[in-house]
Amino acid sequence: MRNIVLASVAAGLAVLAAGFVPGEPSAQAPPAGGPGRQPASPPAPGAQGEDALHKAASATFKPIPSMVPEVKGNPVTREKVELGRMLWFDTRLSASGVLNCNSCHSLAAGGSDNLETSIGHGWQKGPRNAPTVLNSVFNAAQFWDGRAGDLRSQAQGPIQAAVEMAATPEHVTKVLSSIPEYRDRFKAAFPGEREPVTFDTVTRAIEAFEATLITPASRFDQYLEGNRAVLTAEEKRGLGLFMEAGCAACHNGVNLGGQDYFPFGVVERPGADILPPGDKGRFQVTKTASDEYVFRAVPLRNVALTAPYFHSGKVWSLEQAVGVMGVAQLGKELAPAETAAIAAFLRTLTGEQPRVELPQLPPSTATTPRPQPLVKNSLEPAAAVQRQAPPR
Amino acid sequence: MRNIVLASVAAGLAVLAAGFVPGEPSAQAPPAGGPGRQPASPPAPGAQGEDALHKAASATFKPIPSMVPEVKGNPVTREKVELGRMLWFDTRLSASGVLNCNSCHSLAAGGSDNLETSIGHGWQKGPRNAPTVLNSVFNAAQFWDGRAGDLRSQAQGPIQAAVEMAATPEHVTKVLSSIPEYRDRFKAAFPGEREPVTFDTVTRAIEAFEATLITPASRFDQYLEGNRAVLTAEEKRGLGLFMEAGCAACHNGVNLGGQDYFPFGVVERPGADILPPGDKGRFQVTKTASDEYVFRAVPLRNVALTAPYFHSGKVWSLEQAVGVMGVAQLGKELAPAETAAIAAFLRTLTGEQPRVELPQLPPSTATTPRPQPLVKNSLEPAAAVQRQAPPR
Repeated sequence: MRNIVLASVAAGLAVLAAGFVPGEPSAQAPPAGGPGRQPASPPAPGAQGEDALHKAASATFKPIPSMVPEVKGNPVTREKVELGRMLWFDTRLSASGVLNCNSCHSLAAGGSDNLETSIGHGWQKGPRNAPTVLNSVFNAAQFWDGRAGDLRSQAQGPIQAAVEMAATPEHVTKVLSSIPEYRDRFKAAFPGEREPVTFDTVTRAIEAFEATLITPASRFDQYLEGNRAVLTAEEKRGLGLFMEAGCAACHNGVNLGGQDYFPFGVVERPGADILPPGDKGRFQVTKTASDEYVFRAVPLRNVALTAPYFHSGKVWSLEQAVGVMGVAQLGKELAPAETAAIAAFLRTLTGEQPRVELPQLPPSTATTPRPQPLVKNSLEPAAAVQRQAPPR
Repeated sequence: MRNIVLASVAAGLAVLAAGFVPGEPSAQAPPAGGPGRQPASPPAPGAQGEDALHKAASATFKPIPSMVPEVKGNPVTREKVELGRMLWFDTRLSASGVLNCNSCHSLAAGGSDNLETSIGHGWQKGPRNAPTVLNSVFNAAQFWDGRAGDLRSQAQGPIQAAVEMAATPEHVTKVLSSIPEYRDRFKAAFPGEREPVTFDTVTRAIEAFEATLITPASRFDQYLEGNRAVLTAEEKRGLGLFMEAGCAACHNGVNLGGQDYFPFGVVERPGADILPPGDKGRFQVTKTASDEYVFRAVPLRNVALTAPYFHSGKVWSLEQAVGVMGVAQLGKELAPAETAAIAAFLRTLTGEQPRVELPQLPPSTATTPRPQPLVKNSLEPAAAVQRQAPPR
C-alpha cells in the first residue's frame, strides 16, 4: 500500500509539474494516472503510508479558508454584501417577478437546484446543469465553458438569459432605482460612484455576497489542517485512489477543480445520454476545433449535495459519476470497491454551509415596473445561451 | 373632530355588537359606516379626542402578541418548527422539484409573492392572488373562500393543486421517507406516532412553523399598547376614518380581517377587471346562492408589503384599493385626502418581520423520487382549485 500510494503521489505531482497550469485557457488532455492499480482490499496503511498520503494531499489540495477571500477589483464590504444578499433573493430582477438567483442556486441545497437542468422563464428547461455557487469565488472562471472570467461577469448571464430570468439591464436598474431603500443602499455600498445604481454595481454587489458563500471546515479540510484521525480508513483509501488514478490531475487546488478545461472523454467519449452531441461546450466560446466537448473541470467541493452530475445532469449517483469519469477521462474501469472508496472520500468535501438569513425586501413603488410572468419570449434556448455574458 | 370620531366609534361598536360573529361561516353584509363624513382637512384632535380614538381602537383591534400562539390540536415544539422550516423550503415536495411553499409565500417579501396571481407547475397562472402567510395563524379560516379551517388543512392544498406544486401525498411521503435525516426529524417531532412520516405530520410541521411567522411591534401595535406618540396626526386621522367609515366592521381584531366572509360589492359590485365574473368565491365551496362573490375579509396586517390587492390581484396601489373598497363595500366616494390618510394608517400595520435562516436540506438518496419538471398535467386551473383541500 505504501508504495502504491507513493507511486500515485509521484505520478500526480509529476502531472502537476509537467502540464497543469491553473487558469490556462486551452484544453489539455490530463496525463494518465499512476501506474499502480489499487487492489480492491488493500492492507491498512502504516504510519509511513499515512504520512506520505497526508503530505501528498497537502501538496495537491488546499483547505477552504475560514475568512472571506478578497475579490479582485471589488472590495468586499459589509454594505455590498448586505445589498448583494437582498439582490440574490429579489425576484424583481427577473422579467416575470418569479425567479431569483436562489431559484437555481439554492442556499438551502448546496448552492444548486438538484435538477437535471434548471427551469427558467416560462418553465423553459435550461441547456446545462446549474453549477453550485458555493466556493465559486475560488474558481478561475465561471460557467461550464468558462466564458465568464469572474463572478460579476457571470451574474450578468442568468439575469439576461431568455431561458433564465429573461430580464434586461434596463429593467433591473429601473426596478431598483424606483425603490428608495435600494437607492440608499447602493449609495452606501458604492460611495464613489456618480450613479450608484447600474447593472455593473448590481453584479458587483451580488459578487461580494457570493464571495461570502464559502464552506470551510469540511472533514477533508480538517484532515489537510492536520487532524488525520477525522477521515476513516475507507475515506483515506478513496483519497489515495483519487490521486493515484489521476483524478487529482484536474481536480486539485482549493476547489478540487474549477481551474482549467478538459475534453469530456479524453480517452473514451461518454454516450449521448450523458454527453448530448448538440452541446459542444467550450467550442461554443472559442470556435476552436480542439475545444469541442471541452468543459471546465468541475469543482468537487460539496459534491455530495449537488446531484445530479455532469453538464447534462444525467447521472444521479456519485458512485456512477466516478465510474463514468474513470472510463471517459482515465480509460480505467474502476472496481465497485474503488468507486465506493472514492465516493466516500468525495463525501468528506461537504463543508460548513453558509448560514443565510432571508433579507427583508423593500416594497415596490408606483414607478416600479410590474412583473410580467406571461411576457412572451421567442428566443430558442440555444440562442439564449449565446445571449449570456460575452466569451472571455 | 372629537364628535366625529366618537360617532364613528359608536357606529363601529354597534356594528360589532349587532352582527359580527367571528368564525360564523355565512356571508353577511356589513352595516353602513358611521354617519359623519370626515372633512378633508379636519382640525387636529385635542387630548380628549386622542383618548377617545385610542379607546375605540383598543376596543376594536388587538395587538399581535410577541409570543408564538398556541395551535389547537398541534402543540408548537422546537422540533416541529425546525422540521417545518425545512419542509417550507424543500422543493422536493413539488412534483417538479422547482417549487416550495416559499415560492408563493416569500418570507423575504411579506409572506406573499407580489404577483397578480401565482405562477405554479408548468408556469401555469393560478386563479387567485396568494394571501400572505404572516400572522395567518390568527385567521379563523384559510384561503380566500375560507375552505380550510386551519393551517394544516390549508397546507394540503397547494402541495396537491395541479396549478401549484402538483404533487400527491404519496409523492411527498415517499420523498421524505427516503431521506434518513428527515426520518429522524419526523420521529423526534412526532414521538407518539407509530408512523411519523405521513402527509398529516408533514402539514402539521408546516403549520407549527407557520405559527412562528408573526409580526409583532408594528407602529400600530405600539400605539395600541399605549405609545400614542408613535403615530403621526395623518395616521391617526386615517385610523379614525377607518373606523368611522365602516372599514373596521369587517377588518377588526388582531389581524384586521381574516375572521368572516362578505360579498365583494355589498353596495356596488366592482367592474369585471377587479371582480372577474368567473370566480364566484365562497359559492364554489357552499353552493349557496347568497355566497356568490363572497370572500373572506382580507387580513390587513403588513398590507403595505403585499401588493397587488384583492383576490384578483388587479390593483397595485393601496390608495386605489381603499377607494375601491369605499365604493364597493360602503357606497362612499372617499376623497383623495381620505384614501391617503387611511392608506397612511394601513402602512403602520407593517410589523417586525420574522428572521428566518435558510435550512440546510439533507440530500436525496438512491430511493428518492426524482424531480419531474416536465411531467404533463392536463387538469384545467379551475378544476385544480377544486382538487385542493375539501371545503370545511
